[in-house]
Amino acid sequence: MISIDDVRAAAKNITGIAVRTPLLPAWTIGPDLWLKPESLQPVGAFKVRGAVHALMSLPEEARAAGVITHSSGNHGQALAYAGRIVGSPVVVVMPEGAPTVKLEATRALGAEIIEVPPAERESRTAELAAERGLTIIPPYDHRDIIAGQGTVGLEIAEDLPEVEVVLVPVGGGGLASGVATAVKALIPNAAVIGVEPALAGDAADSLAQGELRPWSTEDRYRTVADGLRTSLSELTFTHLRERLDGIVTVSEEEILTTVALLARSTRLVAEPSGAVTTAAYLHHRDELPPGRTVAVVGGGNIDPALLAGLLIAEELDTPPAGAGRVAG
Amino acid sequence: MISIDDVRAAAKNITGIAVRTPLLPAWTIGPDLWLKPESLQPVGAFKVRGAVHALMSLPEEARAAGVITHSSGNHGQALAYAGRIVGSPVVVVMPEGAPTVKLEATRALGAEIIEVPPAERESRTAELAAERGLTIIPPYDHRDIIAGQGTVGLEIAEDLPEVEVVLVPVGGGGLASGVATAVKALIPNAAVIGVEPALAGDAADSLAQGELRPWSTEDRYRTVADGLRTSLSELTFTHLRERLDGIVTVSEEEILTTVALLARSTRLVAEPSGAVTTAAYLHHRDELPPGRTVAVVGGGNIDPALLAGLLIAEELDTPPAGAGRVAG
Repeated sequence: MISIDDVRAAAKNITGIAVRTPLLPAWTIGPDLWLKPESLQPVGAFKVRGAVHALMSLPEEARAAGVITHSSGNHGQALAYAGRIVGSPVVVVMPEGAPTVKLEATRALGAEIIEVPPAERESRTAELAAERGLTIIPPYDHRDIIAGQGTVGLEIAEDLPEVEVVLVPVGGGGLASGVATAVKALIPNAAVIGVEPALAGDAADSLAQGELRPWSTEDRYRTVADGLRTSLSELTFTHLRERLDGIVTVSEEEILTTVALLARSTRLVAEPSGAVTTAAYLHHRDELPPGRTVAVVGGGNIDPALLAGLLIAEELDTPPAGAGRVAG
Repeated sequence: MISIDDVRAAAKNITGIAVRTPLLPAWTIGPDLWLKPESLQPVGAFKVRGAVHALMSLPEEARAAGVITHSSGNHGQALAYAGRIVGSPVVVVMPEGAPTVKLEATRALGAEIIEVPPAERESRTAELAAERGLTIIPPYDHRDIIAGQGTVGLEIAEDLPEVEVVLVPVGGGGLASGVATAVKALIPNAAVIGVEPALAGDAADSLAQGELRPWSTEDRYRTVADGLRTSLSELTFTHLRERLDGIVTVSEEEILTTVALLARSTRLVAEPSGAVTTAAYLHHRDELPPGRTVAVVGGGNIDPALLAGLLIAEELDTPPAGAGRVAG
């Protein structure tokens, strides 16, 4: 498992590249709530932290040779962004049929995009890595990625040493593993609680059963929180089992109404995956320890039309249109 | 006029109360653009800086006796927020018929609201101040308010010493006066440029004519940027004439499309008054000096329905509905 020293090393590497996000007092939502808005990072998500640290940690020749990943989401963009800054060529393998907007955004950052049939993503990535001498940087199943994301926890501990509860989103578990490592090392009495959509609740399931229980893609893809549709790996499961104090699941409607609330009352554009922690604070207080709470807002890459629809739904005081659709 | 020492004193007073907002690299908008997101302040605007500093600067008895203002907008809420934190009673005089949502938001912060006929706002404020021994804290025509808002410039200079251009919104001129004071003192070669809506262009008019030229309320109220509908005072005009390097005006459509762009590509909820600086960067580059530019995003208190409409208009690639309405 990674240590607080690994997180400290990551903090040095990302200084001046990742934004040091502030803690925002969210007094309109709760008197003891602060938000950590990772939506303000260059690619709109915490992912840039791990990507930068992973690149900076490579031997110089490997960094110059280049890296490859097969994430089509925020991690791919974050790696492209990091590569551009540290001067490392980046290849992103995407499934044929991936949204053009994601493809273009990643390409605009200077990455080479290679489209392959969805089923061949992993094998083609491995082949390309071998052929071209590229290093594979996976989105979360990697010590440097976990240490990089852990800098979120380090900053929380530095900025609010009296924090009592930290709420962190759980998808593949890289962010939660890193944050739990940093916070528990620096403030052992603070509780670190994972939050995931009930419809992609593989981490809650795994932690309850004491063994890694990956869910089917079909099940996980029911949630609107597209950043949290991944399952834990052995590495992240080991960290979470050891260091997380609990896990809470939230409903689709709780997630979507919270997206609108965050825009209206804290002026943050949060994606559904970024809103889960505030949703847990609002709707599951009875499952959380009391006290000064920080909710990590993981990212802000939301379809503008979805955000517009949620703002209008809230105005009309009707349940968000998306809720029934994605949950049913 | 205020000095950099006044701004430094303000910085001490607001530490731990106002958020120290980060500089966000806005690489999707421009390679040399950073945003200073004051929309993330507790009341959604930079106003909390001046309000806190003004209260902290009062003699202890005056602070305990309480303060009064007749702003119904962001300044009223900021003063209420500051009063709650430093333990000072706050009275906000509002015109009868002010939006209930603003009234409720200010009252929720613990302020006493007194509704008066619009024409009697100033006289009733003075009467109440005399009757109750309250200190009047105006929204911008006040040295401590200007010094407090100037901390925005101080932070920019600290965080990006190589900045070459600072774009700052101009309404009553308090923010611009403070920012110009701080930036020109610390980085004399950086240009500080004011930005205001063309429909409320009294500052551009005054600076061009070399004399204070207040515009009629009717004229100024045409702009959708409700935070910038005020005219300069003698005090702020003096600061701007001496310390501002130029002023640029932007159109209603430029403002509204930029609100949508900021939400989509930088995940910031900006109000129209907050979007003017980025609009100037996007649409008036030929009027601006080149180089590393910081755009101050002054606030984020926008009607959610307006934001939703702008996001949908952008999606459809049509001119925003609001543009014709407010400009016509």
